[in-house]
Amino acid sequence: MEFADYFPIWNKLTDRQQAELSAAVTCRTVKKGTVVHNGSLDCTGLLIVKSGQLRAYILSDEGREITIYRLFERDFCLFSASCMMRSIQFEVVIEAEKDTDFWLIPSEVWKSVMEVSAPAANFTNEVMATRFSEVMWLLEQIMWKSLDKRIAAFLLEESLLENSPQLRLTHEAIANHLGTHREVVTRMLRYFQSEGMVRLSRGVIELTDPSKLEALQHA
Amino acid sequence: MEFADYFPIWNKLTDRQQAELSAAVTCRTVKKGTVVHNGSLDCTGLLIVKSGQLRAYILSDEGREITIYRLFERDFCLFSASCMMRSIQFEVVIEAEKDTDFWLIPSEVWKSVMEVSAPAANFTNEVMATRFSEVMWLLEQIMWKSLDKRIAAFLLEESLLENSPQLRLTHEAIANHLGTHREVVTRMLRYFQSEGMVRLSRGVIELTDPSKLEALQHA
Repeated sequence: MEFADYFPIWNKLTDRQQAELSAAVTCRTVKKGTVVHNGSLDCTGLLIVKSGQLRAYILSDEGREITIYRLFERDFCLFSASCMMRSIQFEVVIEAEKDTDFWLIPSEVWKSVMEVSAPAANFTNEVMATRFSEVMWLLEQIMWKSLDKRIAAFLLEESLLENSPQLRLTHEAIANHLGTHREVVTRMLRYFQSEGMVRLSRGVIELTDPSKLEALQHA
Repeated sequence: MEFADYFPIWNKLTDRQQAELSAAVTCRTVKKGTVVHNGSLDCTGLLIVKSGQLRAYILSDEGREITIYRLFERDFCLFSASCMMRSIQFEVVIEAEKDTDFWLIPSEVWKSVMEVSAPAANFTNEVMATRFSEVMWLLEQIMWKSLDKRIAAFLLEESLLENSPQLRLTHEAIANHLGTHREVVTRMLRYFQSEGMVRLSRGVIELTDPSKLEALQHA
């Protein structure tokens, strides 16, 4: 697969813009756990996921985390290039959740293309609107949904992503995704276990009754 | 003041684009309390505030509200034209908090300009990034800040906007801004009163010790 195949608006760019991007793009491979972008500390550039999985999260002053969205194959990561837009006034950390290959376009190269190309600017708009929608969804979850439903939804999503009912996940990791405390997650998982929805063992959470979790999620 | 004066990128548009916008724009006046835009029910258009104050909020299925941002003079409201971008997958309600005058550009007119004009598309990007930053700020407040601090911050902001230490605000209205319940707000305001920070009387909250509220907000 060529870089151009990952770029929905490639054919709407001029030859010169295509040449500029082709000359600037690099391919990177990172191991699971690597922090790819760390808030305003770096201006990494526009990322396009070839394979793997990235997680974007925010951090509180006390080091608490909450996942704001995840990126999969063919997703564009804009906020790793947030320095190119002065109105982006928040910081996200991007971390590889699996071994990940991605294309990287330096921020200033994308910015210069976007400044003159309406298709590139509109595409950037659509990417931002997609992330915005994900964050609004999260906000609604946090505001109106209780934590038991959010944990149920998270376990089901993980099971889908891993294509397995057995999840190698610490309670701490779940807490960091959902922006809560480990103790709260542990208490809830024990309750889920007593209800027969999961089975807990060392380092593994097994979904023993996904349909019951599903029902709880939508209750 | 002409319409063009409200448009930071007016001079970067072509004569034809300027003519298109000038022909399509209308000016509206609404009374305090008017719902200007109601989620996906209508595709109102791009709003530019001339004077007054708008509030954007989301609604839960049960009718609970939370303010996601406010718009003041010269602010652009993009989500009242959300139908023009397919990636915007959430719904906001826009309501006049004061008597408000605004310019209105029909969504399809702005969309057609944005499709061919890189400056218009990039400007739209910056507007969206600004709102995104406000929502991220809100998310952080909700996640990491306790409600007493959020109420203190809200009262101080209101006092600044109204240029008065006396606020005509119901506890219900505060709850709707912050996405909580009236009872919770009432309890907190009584605590603030017992600490000498506010004085409560029929329909009025008076900030008697703003510096103490300030200290609480940043504690």
